[in-house]
Amino acid sequence: MKAEIISVGTELLLGELADTNTSFIAGQLAMLGIDLHHASLVGDNRERLLAALRQARQRADLIITTGGLGPTQDDITREAIAGLLEEEPAVDPALKQDLIDYFARRGIEMPENNIRQAVLIPSAVGLPNLRGTAPGWWAEKEGKVIVALPGPPPELQAMWQREVYPRLEKMSSAVIISRTIKTWGVGEAKVDEMTAPVLSAKNPTVGIYSKQDGIHLRITAKAAEKETARKMIARPEAEIRRILGDNIWGTDEETLEGILGQLLIKKGLTLAVAESFTGGLLSYTFASAPESERFFRGGIILGGGEARTAFGLKSPPLAGRASDGITAKMASIARTELGADIGFGIDGYAEPSVDISTGKIFVAIDAGKSSQSVTHNYSGRPHQIVRRAVQSALFDLYRVLR
Amino acid sequence: MKAEIISVGTELLLGELADTNTSFIAGQLAMLGIDLHHASLVGDNRERLLAALRQARQRADLIITTGGLGPTQDDITREAIAGLLEEEPAVDPALKQDLIDYFARRGIEMPENNIRQAVLIPSAVGLPNLRGTAPGWWAEKEGKVIVALPGPPPELQAMWQREVYPRLEKMSSAVIISRTIKTWGVGEAKVDEMTAPVLSAKNPTVGIYSKQDGIHLRITAKAAEKETARKMIARPEAEIRRILGDNIWGTDEETLEGILGQLLIKKGLTLAVAESFTGGLLSYTFASAPESERFFRGGIILGGGEARTAFGLKSPPLAGRASDGITAKMASIARTELGADIGFGIDGYAEPSVDISTGKIFVAIDAGKSSQSVTHNYSGRPHQIVRRAVQSALFDLYRVLR
Repeated sequence: MKAEIISVGTELLLGELADTNTSFIAGQLAMLGIDLHHASLVGDNRERLLAALRQARQRADLIITTGGLGPTQDDITREAIAGLLEEEPAVDPALKQDLIDYFARRGIEMPENNIRQAVLIPSAVGLPNLRGTAPGWWAEKEGKVIVALPGPPPELQAMWQREVYPRLEKMSSAVIISRTIKTWGVGEAKVDEMTAPVLSAKNPTVGIYSKQDGIHLRITAKAAEKETARKMIARPEAEIRRILGDNIWGTDEETLEGILGQLLIKKGLTLAVAESFTGGLLSYTFASAPESERFFRGGIILGGGEARTAFGLKSPPLAGRASDGITAKMASIARTELGADIGFGIDGYAEPSVDISTGKIFVAIDAGKSSQSVTHNYSGRPHQIVRRAVQSALFDLYRVLR
Repeated sequence: MKAEIISVGTELLLGELADTNTSFIAGQLAMLGIDLHHASLVGDNRERLLAALRQARQRADLIITTGGLGPTQDDITREAIAGLLEEEPAVDPALKQDLIDYFARRGIEMPENNIRQAVLIPSAVGLPNLRGTAPGWWAEKEGKVIVALPGPPPELQAMWQREVYPRLEKMSSAVIISRTIKTWGVGEAKVDEMTAPVLSAKNPTVGIYSKQDGIHLRITAKAAEKETARKMIARPEAEIRRILGDNIWGTDEETLEGILGQLLIKKGLTLAVAESFTGGLLSYTFASAPESERFFRGGIILGGGEARTAFGLKSPPLAGRASDGITAKMASIARTELGADIGFGIDGYAEPSVDISTGKIFVAIDAGKSSQSVTHNYSGRPHQIVRRAVQSALFDLYRVLR
C-alpha cells in the first residue's frame, strides 16, 4: 500500500508553525509497513488543495490530510475532499449532537460557526475527536482511502491511535515492531562508534536518535507475524545492552521520572526537592510523573539574587553563587522541611553569553544517614542547560537508587 | 516571485528525522515577500526527485531544495538538478580545493567519496559551506532559480544567511510585515465570529491561530516599502483592539510572564508563588521570564495527598481538596514566608478520567492590604488542564496588575 500526506495550513507556508504531524504519521506508517513516497504542504486555498489531492489520488492508495478542519471560513479541507470525490457535504445529525454535547460539558452554547465541523459526505464516516471539536473523516471510494485529521498534534495523535491505526493495521499485510532503548551519559557519535556492529543490519534495522532525555537506539523489525518480528529484535537488543550497560535507563515509552517514581514507591521512600537555577522544572517533572502523590512531597524554589536567603524557613540556604556546599544545604533543607526520606538539591549557573553559555550544575542527594553530590560542566543555550540539568539530575538519582 | 521548497531524504519519509528546514525557509521567504504555495518531501530516489523538480519548475520561479548533498551514493540532489537542466556535472577545481583544505584543517586526508561534493554544472555557482563539507548550488537558467542547500540545519542556516538571503533580497520587489495580537479568555470560533469584518480582507490578511497562550490574530501586509506595509497594518489592528479590548494582553514575541515581569519591575513589586495542582509549572514559568531575579522571590510546591500540611512552615496550608479557602491561605503563606509584595496561590483538581477530565482551578492573589480570588472550570486532558491553569492564572494576575 502506498500513502501520501498532505498538510494543510497557510501558517505552515509562512513558517509560523512547524509541521510536526508529517513526521509523526510517517513514523507510524513505517511501523505499519505502508510506503510513503511523497508528503506536501499546501496553504488554506481550495483550488491548490484540490489539485494536490487529485495528484495524490493518482499516485497513492491512501491519502492522509492534516489540518483545515477548524470552524472558520479558511478551514477548507472538508470542502476540498468533497470536491475531489464530487459529493455534497451535509450536516450529520450525530456529529452535530456530539458537538452540542462537547460545548454543553463546558457550560457553553455552541457558537454557530462550529456547525461547519458537523458536515459529512456520503463516502465518509466521522472519526470522534476526544480532545477538540473537529471530527476527522475516513472516506473510502473506488478502492482508495482518504483520511482527514485535525491539525493540533494532541488531537491528531489521539485520533490516530484510537481510530486510524487500528483500521490501517487491518489493511496492511506486514507488521513492523520497534523497540527503543534509552541511554544517558554517552554522546551520539560515541554511541554510533560503540554500536557500529549492530548498525549495518537491514532487518532489523537500528537507528540512533539524539533526544532531550539522552541518546535513543531504535530497533525495528519487519515480518509477517508480530511474534517473528519480536524474536528478531531480541538479538540486537541483547548486544546493545552488553555494549552500553549502565548507561541504559529505560525502554520505549518509559520516562526517567516515571522509573524513579516507581523505584521510590517500591522502596517506600518519599522525595522532596529544593531548586534555584532550574526554577521549578525539576519539581514539575516529578509532580507530572504517574502516582506522584505517593512519593513526591513537594519543592522549594529559591528565586535568584537576594531571594535565596529570604525564605522563611527555620534554616534558610546560604547566600552566594551556586556551589557544592549550597546544594548540600538545599538537599538537607528539602528533606527536613518537607518531612521526606530523600532531599534532592539542585543549583547551577551559566556564564552570560549571547549564543552559547558554559556553566556548572551542582546536584546533591541527602538521605539522612548518607549524602552524595555531583558536579557537571555544561555548554549550550541557557534554556537548554536548564533542561539538561534536570535530566542529568534525574539520572544521578537513578544511579543512586538503582 | 513564487517559490517552492523540496526537502530530500528517505529518513524524513520514515519519520526518523523531522524536517525543520521547511519551516525555517518558509519564515525567511515570508519576510522577503516571496510567495510560497507548495512544499514537499521526497525520498532519496532520483526519478521521484526529478519529477518533483519538473513540477516545481512549472509552478514556481524559485526552487529551493534541502538535503541530498552528502558524499554517498544515495545523495542524489546534484544529479537530479543536472538532469532537470539537461547539463553534465563535472568536478570544479576550486570546489575540490576547498574540500581538500577543509579536511586538511582537521588533519585528515579527504576521503575519496567526498569528490562527489565538488561537482558543478555550467549554470550553477557553488555556495561555500562554513560548517560542513557540502557546498550548495545557485543555478540560474531561463529566468528560473534553483538553490540546493545541505540538509543539516546549522549548515543550511549559515549558508542561507550568508549566501542565499542577500541574493534573494536583491531580487525581491515586495516586503511582508506581520503583527500578531495575542488574546486570552475567548475561544477560537468566538474570536472568528467577532472579528468577521476584518477577516475577509485580502491585503492585509488576518489569520486566527489557537495557541497554548490563547488565540492569536496575525495581520500580514504586503507592499513595496516597509513603511507602507506598516501603515496598512494600523487600521485592522485598531479595529481588532476595539473589538477584543481587554482580552488582548500582548503582541508579537511577547509572553504573558514577560509582560507580568516588566509590570512588576516597573511598579517595584516582588512576587512569590505557592502551588500544588500545577506542580511547579507556574514557578518555572516566572523563573524563565527575562530579569526574573528582579521580581520573582521563589515558590513553594506542595505535593499531593498528605504532603500539603507536612511543609515545615510556620503556618502550613490547610489539608483537604483544593478550594477557594486553601488557595487564599497558600497565597498568604507565599507572600509572608518569601517576603514578597504579592503572594500568588494556585490549586485545583481534575476528576479522574481516562481521556477527558473536568476540573476546577482556584487562583488567589494576596497583596497584603487587598486580596482576590478567581475560580475557573476546565475540561481537557489532565496535563492540558495544568498548562491552561497556568496561563489562566497569569492572565488573572495581568488583569489585577493592569
